[in-house]
Amino acid sequence: MPNTILENIRLPDGTQAAIVIAGGRIATIGAAPAAGPGDTRIDGGGALALPGLVEAHAHLDKTLLGMGWYRNEVGPRLIDKIDNERVQRRRLGIDPGRQSARQVVLSLSKGSTHIRTHVDVDTEVGLSGIEGLLATRERYRAQCDIQIVAFPQSGLLVRSGTLELMEEAMRAGADIVGGLDPCAIDRDPRAHVDAVFALAQKFGTGVDIHLHEPGELGGFSMELIIDRTRALGMQGHVVISHAFCLGMPDAAYVAQLVEQLAEARIAIMSHGAPYRPVPSVKQLRAAGVTLCCGSDGIRDTWGPYGNADMLERAMIVGLRNNLRRDDEVELAVDMVTQGGATAMRLVDYGLVPGAWADIVLVDAETPADAVVSRPPRRLVLKRGEVVARDGETLVAAP
Amino acid sequence: MPNTILENIRLPDGTQAAIVIAGGRIATIGAAPAAGPGDTRIDGGGALALPGLVEAHAHLDKTLLGMGWYRNEVGPRLIDKIDNERVQRRRLGIDPGRQSARQVVLSLSKGSTHIRTHVDVDTEVGLSGIEGLLATRERYRAQCDIQIVAFPQSGLLVRSGTLELMEEAMRAGADIVGGLDPCAIDRDPRAHVDAVFALAQKFGTGVDIHLHEPGELGGFSMELIIDRTRALGMQGHVVISHAFCLGMPDAAYVAQLVEQLAEARIAIMSHGAPYRPVPSVKQLRAAGVTLCCGSDGIRDTWGPYGNADMLERAMIVGLRNNLRRDDEVELAVDMVTQGGATAMRLVDYGLVPGAWADIVLVDAETPADAVVSRPPRRLVLKRGEVVARDGETLVAAP
Repeated sequence: MPNTILENIRLPDGTQAAIVIAGGRIATIGAAPAAGPGDTRIDGGGALALPGLVEAHAHLDKTLLGMGWYRNEVGPRLIDKIDNERVQRRRLGIDPGRQSARQVVLSLSKGSTHIRTHVDVDTEVGLSGIEGLLATRERYRAQCDIQIVAFPQSGLLVRSGTLELMEEAMRAGADIVGGLDPCAIDRDPRAHVDAVFALAQKFGTGVDIHLHEPGELGGFSMELIIDRTRALGMQGHVVISHAFCLGMPDAAYVAQLVEQLAEARIAIMSHGAPYRPVPSVKQLRAAGVTLCCGSDGIRDTWGPYGNADMLERAMIVGLRNNLRRDDEVELAVDMVTQGGATAMRLVDYGLVPGAWADIVLVDAETPADAVVSRPPRRLVLKRGEVVARDGETLVAAP
Repeated sequence: MPNTILENIRLPDGTQAAIVIAGGRIATIGAAPAAGPGDTRIDGGGALALPGLVEAHAHLDKTLLGMGWYRNEVGPRLIDKIDNERVQRRRLGIDPGRQSARQVVLSLSKGSTHIRTHVDVDTEVGLSGIEGLLATRERYRAQCDIQIVAFPQSGLLVRSGTLELMEEAMRAGADIVGGLDPCAIDRDPRAHVDAVFALAQKFGTGVDIHLHEPGELGGFSMELIIDRTRALGMQGHVVISHAFCLGMPDAAYVAQLVEQLAEARIAIMSHGAPYRPVPSVKQLRAAGVTLCCGSDGIRDTWGPYGNADMLERAMIVGLRNNLRRDDEVELAVDMVTQGGATAMRLVDYGLVPGAWADIVLVDAETPADAVVSRPPRRLVLKRGEVVARDGETLVAAP
């Protein structure tokens, strides 16, 4: 079988190299070999090669991309935003299949080759979000790996019928069981956490819980999650998204929580929310906690920001955590690459022989430069096939 | 004299309009008139028109733009960064004239038509930074208005000879007297503030003081600044840059400081530092305090971030202050336009008849969309002349 030879690139450590791709996987990394008959050579133009970027926390079903500017006039509370979204979804006709497809294409153009998305499941939308995402996943199967989290955005137990819908969502093809603020939304933290973990056990899968709860309240919910993770032997299968409580002032309590997270191998997704206390990525990294990163919602009824660029997201995490030294900025790069892969339990990921050839080329001198400069992506490969070039995807959005 | 007619544009309030430019100024805004003989018509392509963006806090003399990637390995303290910079300046050969010119051209490409820059004055660099900036100001006189702040980065009184250099800087052509952390650096707040204000009085000009000092320490320094402003009748002539102390937990004390700032008409420059307590732009705006915004240092020995795009800076301020509603995001737009103009005491600024025709066209539906999307600037005009088109300047950088 002919190979693809991606030559004239630089690896993150600065060495010049060529990557030989065979059967969609990286065969070798090193000096450029002589081309065999039928081999394809791609000139990397001296660009920096990174493994395909990992978007570990998106909300693909609810973006308004391509729907014109949405004038945001929503109130300040969390519940205002949740309620407004349910109203606007009907008013604007936010089609989860179409909208998720648009965001996937945008993500591909920015070099993301893996996406974990939380998808609303509630008694109003039912499984329409899940169905839209299943269609989008199928549509872009060759370009992007998509993990679907069934997400009870409006509460799991507080709205009767949601738990049953969550189970249907898992049966229909969702990969991961989601959860949300066990105290603040369902007002019954023990029951919420038990229900989420029971569903995950039933389907033999992982858990990814949104935890916005601040301070000691969030710490309490986090303890409940840690307890279940240990009791059920789910170490390495649980992600806590946001975890704002780890930014609370009580440093001793935070240190103790962080130690437990490391021990229970629970990953933390932080997108570097600039207006809230956030987990310290340096502290978590030093403790050995897996860190990943995501866009969260972009261009939706919650807020206007975001463009699905994981290098821009790494910049925001870097600014939020005051990462200035190159070795510090590289922590943020790790979060949008290997950290995301570990949190999502991706198999055969990375710039190593044997891994899938999911590669993004960026015109930057170093990984930190890539975060700072964020030029259009020169080339994006998924399993060795070109999916985007110079910031433009080869597949179309609806 | 023939006019320039900028037609097919949208104003920030959404109305379609044409802007007629005569003698470098806006003559009329309204329906497109019939062209007279010799008139130039420019098609705005339906883009949004904003007044030229205002970069109210830069450090043009110290950027490393165009000098290759600088690997940052500097220590964590403020003094580490100040000391490292003095060492690197010699080692790398950071030429203030060349480097400031590079950043001015970058700023122009992003639509900034006015820049206030703080320029280091110390016993090592002497006036070389000021001289470099004076040359750059002259070089781009037709494209950009540059205000020069003489800035005692390494301390004003603690390094003997600096005060005399500051006076020379003012005599050489600097516009504004700078200052820096009266307690933390000079360790003699009363003497520092007195020296800064005395110099400003001597030259009949304004003051712009960097105040990084946190909490109650910064509050104390701020009180000293407010006292001098009132005593010397300098209301409307003083800017405090950063003012991190206004993000301190003691809300009652902050409210009292904010009231005094409004009363003394002291403007606040906030660039939305994501990793520190910052002034609340909503609170300051509600109190009637003038707010402006700047890039601060970009691509320098302090840190790697920044691209001189004031729309990106508005996004960072928006994220930091949780500005989500359109009317909130417009606060950040105001900071990079009219707020900056007020703080810098610009004359004849804005999209109004009689103002200088400093205009930037952005392909965005609304001002908030411009902040979120940040596309390459379609057109930048300075006093009616095109200085950049589609993100590229018509003048070159060295």
